[in-house]
Amino acid sequence: MPEISDAFDNVESRPSTQVAALDIGSNSFHLVVARIVAGNVQILHRVKQKVRLADGLDSQFRLDDAAMQRGLETLAVIAESLKGFAPDSVRIVATYTLRKAKNAKEFIRAAKKILPYPIEVISGIEEARLIYSGVAHTIQDSGKRLVIDIGGGSTEFIIGEGFETKLLRSLQMGCVSYSKRFFDNGEMTNQAFKRAIMAAQQELELIDVKYLKQGWQHCIGTSGTIKAIVLVVQSLNSENSEGFVNLDHLKTLKQRCIDAKHIDALAFPTLTQDRVPVFAAGLSILIAAFKSLKISAMEYSPAALREGVMYEMEEQLAHHDIRERTAQSLATRYDVDLEHAKRVHNTALYIYDQCRKQWKISGQASRNMLGWAAMLHEIGLQINSRGVQRHSAYILQNVDLYGFNQEQQALLAILARFHRKKVRLEELPELWQFDPDSVIKLLIILRLSVILNIKRQDDILPEFAVRVKDQSIDIQFPKEWLEHKPIFTADLARESTYLSTLGYQLTVN
Amino acid sequence: MPEISDAFDNVESRPSTQVAALDIGSNSFHLVVARIVAGNVQILHRVKQKVRLADGLDSQFRLDDAAMQRGLETLAVIAESLKGFAPDSVRIVATYTLRKAKNAKEFIRAAKKILPYPIEVISGIEEARLIYSGVAHTIQDSGKRLVIDIGGGSTEFIIGEGFETKLLRSLQMGCVSYSKRFFDNGEMTNQAFKRAIMAAQQELELIDVKYLKQGWQHCIGTSGTIKAIVLVVQSLNSENSEGFVNLDHLKTLKQRCIDAKHIDALAFPTLTQDRVPVFAAGLSILIAAFKSLKISAMEYSPAALREGVMYEMEEQLAHHDIRERTAQSLATRYDVDLEHAKRVHNTALYIYDQCRKQWKISGQASRNMLGWAAMLHEIGLQINSRGVQRHSAYILQNVDLYGFNQEQQALLAILARFHRKKVRLEELPELWQFDPDSVIKLLIILRLSVILNIKRQDDILPEFAVRVKDQSIDIQFPKEWLEHKPIFTADLARESTYLSTLGYQLTVN
Repeated sequence: MPEISDAFDNVESRPSTQVAALDIGSNSFHLVVARIVAGNVQILHRVKQKVRLADGLDSQFRLDDAAMQRGLETLAVIAESLKGFAPDSVRIVATYTLRKAKNAKEFIRAAKKILPYPIEVISGIEEARLIYSGVAHTIQDSGKRLVIDIGGGSTEFIIGEGFETKLLRSLQMGCVSYSKRFFDNGEMTNQAFKRAIMAAQQELELIDVKYLKQGWQHCIGTSGTIKAIVLVVQSLNSENSEGFVNLDHLKTLKQRCIDAKHIDALAFPTLTQDRVPVFAAGLSILIAAFKSLKISAMEYSPAALREGVMYEMEEQLAHHDIRERTAQSLATRYDVDLEHAKRVHNTALYIYDQCRKQWKISGQASRNMLGWAAMLHEIGLQINSRGVQRHSAYILQNVDLYGFNQEQQALLAILARFHRKKVRLEELPELWQFDPDSVIKLLIILRLSVILNIKRQDDILPEFAVRVKDQSIDIQFPKEWLEHKPIFTADLARESTYLSTLGYQLTVN
Repeated sequence: MPEISDAFDNVESRPSTQVAALDIGSNSFHLVVARIVAGNVQILHRVKQKVRLADGLDSQFRLDDAAMQRGLETLAVIAESLKGFAPDSVRIVATYTLRKAKNAKEFIRAAKKILPYPIEVISGIEEARLIYSGVAHTIQDSGKRLVIDIGGGSTEFIIGEGFETKLLRSLQMGCVSYSKRFFDNGEMTNQAFKRAIMAAQQELELIDVKYLKQGWQHCIGTSGTIKAIVLVVQSLNSENSEGFVNLDHLKTLKQRCIDAKHIDALAFPTLTQDRVPVFAAGLSILIAAFKSLKISAMEYSPAALREGVMYEMEEQLAHHDIRERTAQSLATRYDVDLEHAKRVHNTALYIYDQCRKQWKISGQASRNMLGWAAMLHEIGLQINSRGVQRHSAYILQNVDLYGFNQEQQALLAILARFHRKKVRLEELPELWQFDPDSVIKLLIILRLSVILNIKRQDDILPEFAVRVKDQSIDIQFPKEWLEHKPIFTADLARESTYLSTLGYQLTVN
């Protein structure tokens, strides 16, 4: 500790962390860098790069080379800003376009060479949740709010109150994809608007009754599209100083567009050139939302996805991991046998801690994933006990898992999928955050924990030791304990056969 | 009405129906013919044919030609007994072997030419339920009972009380499959018994704790295997007149087998020649059950699967359809939005009744299936609203559906699978009870009912008329009703595009 002068005696030295969140959006990439001091997030700077990634998605949902190139070049620029950041202080999330692109892995593989941080592809619902979190952390008001975020490929609708979300939905419509679909030639006809608004209202039919029933007091819009619309409305209505937008404003804007006929002729003082090509599509989606959800007025908030990601990093740093709550609520909703899940969970972490070093599977991340997999591996019992491993995997793969990214969700599913019986190696997905070798090792630990608790009773297992080395696992029970347990011994023998097909050798004494 | 003499004045003329149930088992085929009079089942005659179908299953689960031939020849014999029976007075169920055989369809296709009645392949759980029903209808006692039925390929364990089942399970072990696995060379060594019993106990580990926890007062065995064992025990213990079998009896039997060394030397007075090859395997499974479930004594009941099928036919005749209860309980368990399900259900049956004749989809069977599909089509919402059609289908395909055979279950799943969005014709399974054309028509009716109720609200739909002809459907709304409903009109236009890919033309006025 270096000496400090007396003048600093009463100043607490607070630890601070510098963190960064990058949002790989369908229209733009956004980077936010912040300092977290005593639970407080201080935004240091923001970088925004227009990439229009969704433009490169063809009708077969393949991302074309040009879009990939644009994306990778932008990542190279951003990489400069991230130099020196520790691995766990950077979080990168990707949304609609990489969610949809069949060749997303190509892009992620190439990106890995440029940015040494994992790219998490998140689901639409997860995106909605994080957007809401960004808003909730920056706006203080009372009552329920409806938050709308129009992205390049998807639009999120969230109703929440305080920090709690009540309804979350991501619809597949965005300013880039709708531009391509309805305004491809740049012409802004009445007919084109009509078709775009109609299509968006058809999407909204999926949610409108439910959302209207839930209701809200304030409506808040986020994202560049809504910001652009709000700015144009303000510039055209100088008396409208409160920043609220209503349907009349939007209709006037639409008429102005139709009068201009073509985007080349579009000239609003506040509209930046890069917004021009997607303006009409974004406006159509917003008009549809106002109509279907009967919105009277909306205000704009600059907080969005990246701020949500940022605040979540802060919370995780403060040890409130939302995934904990997600896993627990799922276990409750699906009537998991909690007693048994707890036994398997404890055994799994016990074995993990004995193998961790030798097997080089360290890191709180993988230990947590193993714990959640143990908690949820029998969730499929609700469908059927026959083939429970398949049903658990199906549910975990398809249910909304708040706080988990797509890779983590895939890992949970795959651990559940093969928690017993034969392991089909060819079904293991390619993951970026977890290498195949670690996945197999976590799987083996989970399987052993299940087998060791096969009797589904407390106080059956004695103290035991697990030793691992490379591809071998040795379980040591107290002397003679196994001797009069022929069925249990046969179970372990069968498991040893299963593991040998994975190239691992199990010995039990 | 013909005249009847005065002497008959006070005699009620009760209507009677002759019904037949055929059980295509893995070891034997059993036919029961009965008369149902005023809700009472009078068994007229029984036919049993040893076929040992499971013997023809190879390690790849393909049924070999010889076994198919044996099966078909036996069906030809049985067909003689069924001449003149009306289609809905015969029910044919097939169990383990056809459930497992990858080429079961070949067999069923050939069988269809011999027997003009549909063969229903039923799940293990459904088999267990029907076995219990057979026992419950013929044995009167109080308290809970454990029923065990050792078949050729599977063994069912059921705990129930009165007519209600509490636990149902079918384990994959049977006297034919275990004979092949452990006593293939005909030698009955101590070692072979040990291995067979151990394997069965490993299977039983899946259920033993749960069953012991539930408990029971009486244990009842059914099936030929248990009958043979009970008869041998009785013949060896003449003082044992009550017909109960305990573990000591079984152990003695096992020792006798080991002493005899080879099945060729097996000679118990009551053991028929056709039982000899599977006796040791059946005995091993029964010993394992006694050990794992701590059974003190078991008695034999001649009622089994076919009696259960028979009594169920009687109940269906009396309009108590267990499937009704199954569908309702499933809807409750999965928190289906019942208000909405009811709307879709009513619309579906309303359309069905208007199309029935023209489309030749008559028959209560298909109307019922449509109704249940409407009730359950959104069951997958519990997993996720995105892709709900996939999730609903997954659940319906995998959950235990009491009272439904595998084809009916597949039909429900496929209707739910494509109740909205694109229909992938190549995913429609080949069904025997329902021709592809009717399946598509039921699907179209369900889809229209879903679209028409897209607003999920009561009192929105006016009276409307549906007219169909070959491949065209015309929906007629009241005059001008559609005019100010552009979104709804667009929904119907989109649906019309979907239906056109099925070769159907939808017009709406």
